[in-house]
Amino acid sequence: MTRFFVDPSELAGAGLTLTGENAKHAKVLRLKAGEEVLVCDGAGGECLCRVVDYADGAVELEILERREASTEAAVRVSVYMAFPKADKLEHVIQKATELGAYEIVAFPAARCVSRPDEKSLKKKLERWQKIAASAAEQSGRGRIPEVRVVASYAAALEQAARCDKALMFYENEHATTLRMALESSPFESVSLLTGPEGGLEEREVEQARNAGLQVCTLGSRILRCETAPLCALSAVMYAAGEF
Amino acid sequence: MTRFFVDPSELAGAGLTLTGENAKHAKVLRLKAGEEVLVCDGAGGECLCRVVDYADGAVELEILERREASTEAAVRVSVYMAFPKADKLEHVIQKATELGAYEIVAFPAARCVSRPDEKSLKKKLERWQKIAASAAEQSGRGRIPEVRVVASYAAALEQAARCDKALMFYENEHATTLRMALESSPFESVSLLTGPEGGLEEREVEQARNAGLQVCTLGSRILRCETAPLCALSAVMYAAGEF
Repeated sequence: MTRFFVDPSELAGAGLTLTGENAKHAKVLRLKAGEEVLVCDGAGGECLCRVVDYADGAVELEILERREASTEAAVRVSVYMAFPKADKLEHVIQKATELGAYEIVAFPAARCVSRPDEKSLKKKLERWQKIAASAAEQSGRGRIPEVRVVASYAAALEQAARCDKALMFYENEHATTLRMALESSPFESVSLLTGPEGGLEEREVEQARNAGLQVCTLGSRILRCETAPLCALSAVMYAAGEF
Repeated sequence: MTRFFVDPSELAGAGLTLTGENAKHAKVLRLKAGEEVLVCDGAGGECLCRVVDYADGAVELEILERREASTEAAVRVSVYMAFPKADKLEHVIQKATELGAYEIVAFPAARCVSRPDEKSLKKKLERWQKIAASAAEQSGRGRIPEVRVVASYAAALEQAARCDKALMFYENEHATTLRMALESSPFESVSLLTGPEGGLEEREVEQARNAGLQVCTLGSRILRCETAPLCALSAVMYAAGEF
């Protein structure tokens, strides 16, 4: 079923009108009066709606049923990724959204080559949030994951550590597997922290341990910085019983 | 440790000489006499070597130890992917190699938009195999996964069905999870079959069932055709105890 995202305030009444990009999209899809569509508030709530009228670039809908989105994962996974080069972050935002991530958080690390300045950051965040919105729509999610940036490595650790499972992946860790970390106790929220192209420095790994993160391996092969978070996210979703 | 791939025949004697691309790569890395490197036969065997001499664009090595590569997964996973558009197959070849796939097999399906003709296929296969070789080297693998093409959908099913677990992923399957399929019995080999951009047709899914494949879900979100095989591969590696 076709899915539109609107501001939660628009879902307050008994009906709503799709405008702007949503109306254009409806036109492309040639939606007709009587057809049913899903309208999501982007925060996990959705409404089953019926097209009432369609004219002058606006689509009038009647709300049939309000419900919770059924496509959101029960486990909340936060993907913490050190700023990578160029378009890799965009790739991870798109894929992590498809795979059901709760949020995607970029942070600076010692070996990051790319670090957007304050000025370009606002524009970039807008662009990243749009990528997440588009991927959420395509994958049929009811919630758009938030894309955030934290200003320091220490702040990223502090925030990541608040999850039930706060995990860092490091290629020189061989003893603790992701499975050990996940199976030791039940969890509802997980943070997955991975390094930049050049990897994390040993002192950064120590800093993470001190902040309460558990350092794990993702196997004996070296994964690229854009592969590691998606591999870990897929495995956590599997381990949490999503598929 | 630096890793070079050579033809297995070159590892027959007590020493060997790196030439061509390998020698160029050694030069870039400024390898010195006395340094240790790994030379892999690309089929899971590797030799720990020491640089003896380095001159005139060739590197002479002494073999110190012959062993099995320690970075190969115990489980053999074959990734069967319906031909996708453009560069998506290249993406999957690179990532699946990093993630430890045993082989990557492309096949035609009803809704495939792209289907390389016989003539362009040979060149493409060479290019794809190079991508796998490069990803194997970078991720520290001892084996280069083979990239193959099968001529028909029926042949793909027949080959995929030979694995201990032969699994197809389909967005309209909701009852059987990947976990159910994997946990029902022990396995040493797994095939993961996924569809093209437009998805698999219902009759193709039936055909797969009849050929002995088990049809599973990868969760309630719709994954893009390049995301599904990598998500499934990551989960299988996790389930098989790789990390």
